[in-house]
This record gives sequence, C-alpha cells and structure tokens, in this order.
Amino acid sequence: MEGRLNISKSDIKFVRSLQHKKYRDESGCFVAEGDKCVGELLGYFELEKMFRADELSAKQLEQLSALRSPQGAVAVFKKREQELPSLSSLSCELTLVLDGVQDPGNLGTIIRTADWFGVKRIICSRDTADCYNPKVVQATMGALARVSVFYTDLPDVLSRNKATAQIPVYGTLLNGRNMYQNGAICRSDDDAGVSGLLIMGNEGNGISVSVREYITYPLFIPSYPAGAKTSESLNVAVATAVVLAEMRR
Amino acid sequence: MEGRLNISKSDIKFVRSLQHKKYRDESGCFVAEGDKCVGELLGYFELEKMFRADELSAKQLEQLSALRSPQGAVAVFKKREQELPSLSSLSCELTLVLDGVQDPGNLGTIIRTADWFGVKRIICSRDTADCYNPKVVQATMGALARVSVFYTDLPDVLSRNKATAQIPVYGTLLNGRNMYQNGAICRSDDDAGVSGLLIMGNEGNGISVSVREYITYPLFIPSYPAGAKTSESLNVAVATAVVLAEMRR
Repeated sequence: MEGRLNISKSDIKFVRSLQHKKYRDESGCFVAEGDKCVGELLGYFELEKMFRADELSAKQLEQLSALRSPQGAVAVFKKREQELPSLSSLSCELTLVLDGVQDPGNLGTIIRTADWFGVKRIICSRDTADCYNPKVVQATMGALARVSVFYTDLPDVLSRNKATAQIPVYGTLLNGRNMYQNGAICRSDDDAGVSGLLIMGNEGNGISVSVREYITYPLFIPSYPAGAKTSESLNVAVATAVVLAEMRR
Repeated sequence: MEGRLNISKSDIKFVRSLQHKKYRDESGCFVAEGDKCVGELLGYFELEKMFRADELSAKQLEQLSALRSPQGAVAVFKKREQELPSLSSLSCELTLVLDGVQDPGNLGTIIRTADWFGVKRIICSRDTADCYNPKVVQATMGALARVSVFYTDLPDVLSRNKATAQIPVYGTLLNGRNMYQNGAICRSDDDAGVSGLLIMGNEGNGISVSVREYITYPLFIPSYPAGAKTSESLNVAVATAVVLAEMRR
C-alpha cells in the first residue's frame, strides 16, 4: 500500500543524514523513533518534523528508519544546547560522570537508568558516545526528556571541583573499597541521600588515568562468593545501575 | 597482506552458517570471537576449529567474523547439551529464570552478570534468545564457561516446584514489594545467603501471565525520589543486576 503522506526525497535524505554526528551537528537536529519514545520527547524538545506511523507505507518507514525493525512514528527534534551548570549548584545533587563510554546501547541504557534513579545530569568526556545518536535515543526509551547530558573536558571540571566546590567524587575501580562497607559511600546526616559526582569509565579500559586521580571515594562492587573465579568485570551500564541503586536506596 | 593460513571456502561457509540457530542446532557447534572470549571458553567447551588472529589476513578475518569490528581469534566450539538438574538440587542455590528475554545483548549481559554474582544456572523459556547466538556469546565475555543455560517449559518447571520442592520464587513486577523492605527477600538464618528462583521477564511485556502466578515473592526496584515521573521501567539486564547485587551483598 502506498503511504498517504507525500515524503520528498530530500526529507528522506535529511532524516537519514541524522544517523551521522556530522549532520546532527550541522543541522542541530536529531531523530527519534517509535510512538512511545517520540511521545516522551514531544514536550521537551522542539519538534522539527513528524512522520506518523499511520501516514507512512512500510517502504517509506523503512527508508526513514535507522532501525532494523522500524516501530512507529519517526520525528526530528532540535537538540538542546546547554551550558554545564556551575559546580556549586551540583553540590547537593547526585551527578553521573562518564569517561569514554563508547557503546551507544550502553549510553542509552545508562541515561534510562539515571532517569529511574533521579539523576538529572550526566557530564561526559568528549570521547563518550553522542547522546543524540539514534541508537542511544532508542535505548533511552524517552529518558532524554528528563536527563541533561553535557560534553566537556573531565580533568578540567574535576580539577576545578578539587580547587573550589570539593564535591565528593565516587568512581568504580577494581582496587576500590567494597561499596557496602560502612563509610564507603558518604551519606548525609539529615537523610537527604547521597550527593556527589559518580564517575564510570570506558568499556575496556575503565576510568582513564588523568581522571582517576580525582576520585576521593573509590568503590568496588563485590562479586560472589568472595575470591571465586568470575567474569573480570561487569558491563558499564550494569555497574552504573548497581551503584546508583545503592546510593538511592 | 595474505594470511598465512589456508582457509577453505567451506570453512568460511561453515563458520558463517553458525550465525544462524538452524545451523548451530544441526551441527551442534557455535562460534566465539576475540582472544579473551575464546581463551575463557577453551577449557570448558570442546574445540572444533580455531583460527588464530596472527594466522589470518584482515580479509579472511572479515569473512569469518559476525562482528562489525572483528577482534582477534575466531573459534568453533561444540555446544554442551545438558539436562536440567532436579529441583531438589537447586533448593540451596540462587538460580536465574528468564521468561522471553529477546535481545541477544541483554541475554549476554545477564549471563556475564550472573557469573559475577555466582549464579551457576539460568533456566530460560523456549522463546528466550539462544545463548549460542554469536552476539550473546560476545556479550558474555566468556562467562558461558561458568554459567549453564537451559531451555525448557517454564510453567511446567514452576508447577512441579510448587507441588514438590517449593523453592521460593522471586520475580520483579511493577506492583511488587519494595525489595529493600524487611522480608521482601527471604534471608536464611545461618547467613548462607539467599536461595531461590529469580524470574526476569521480556523487554516489553515483563513476566508472562502463565509464569507470573508462580511468583511467591514479588519484588519491585524503587525509583527515586518516590513518586517522581521517571522512565517506566529499567532495562532487563540492569534490573537483573540490581536484584542480584542485593541478594548477594
């Protein structure tokens, strides 16, 4: 069946170009797919173009989609460009810091998880995957509407924090402290929960050396049973979730 | 540069065929890639064929590999066919039960996470992804060496458990009990840790109705802060990790 919508070749070319960071940067736009994901983002990002599923033929949808199994609406939104908030304004919050997370699926899952645990801001190194990559947007399940993602130079931010705000800096390291031990996580007296920066590192190499030196609370997620031969590490999205769950319980 | 190894066309065809479940079932073989993953599996699965990275040209590696970025050795192993252990033998262990987990990356991450937390067995519904799918094998990072995965009819196993062994059955449900509340998780008196079956469900639909009725301890991972608008759910691999971490702490 032919679609009821006339989609020009240039529309298709434009939407498909947004699979590439270069064209997202040039146009300031990104693409989201699926009725649920698009619906979540509608109130938060300025809508540029919308192609509703019931207006598209299967062929048109396939042409527009970056997914192997396209699932509903395809929408183009304007990216939000935001300034990193001042360090002092972060001192009573829990903020996630990602150092070189490369896999789009992992980044999307981390954004979704951050949203679940009430983390409002994620500060990323410049070599972390782009949060507007369609695979990331897909994996967030719409959480990009509530979580702000910033890209910056991490050693610069962390050295300024060390010199001024002195927000506690958590990070998972294989030689960190068992996160369930008393004092491994610094809880405020008034039960307002844990605040600080939580750094999670690259899939293969963990937290880079130039970032590691700023960690004031090194954490380790204990495997079970202690001392048994197991996997060498956890997936970074999984590790992020386990630490956030403990900080928010 | 030409590879130093003569690889026949039929070798390439055979290895590539193992990307499909039909041919894995016919041959009883599966393929693993990457020096680390292959190395982990070497002691646990019977080796059928091995193509070492230093023996392969880039072109040969690309022909053999299922990955976009091939990374080292490619090996063909014999699958292990195993009988599901008796329910009584599971009564003092923590066993994971997967009901329709579809995404290979999720399944692989779950196997890797199970390994980290000392879960030795995973019982899957027949519509769960195949643990010998190359994308699953890749995401396990070698954990398949230490975690046994079984496929069976879940309602059958769970009804037999209800009638005989009566192992506690945990499962995450949106209307479950806050998992951090006293008694939500049943801990043994002698501090031997939590034992039971932990059911995790499909990415979109959660635990199916015919399985849900067997849950004796419904659990819920609380979001933060209570009552705030967040993502509707956590990714299934992430949720599995958060529950396992709590049960093993």
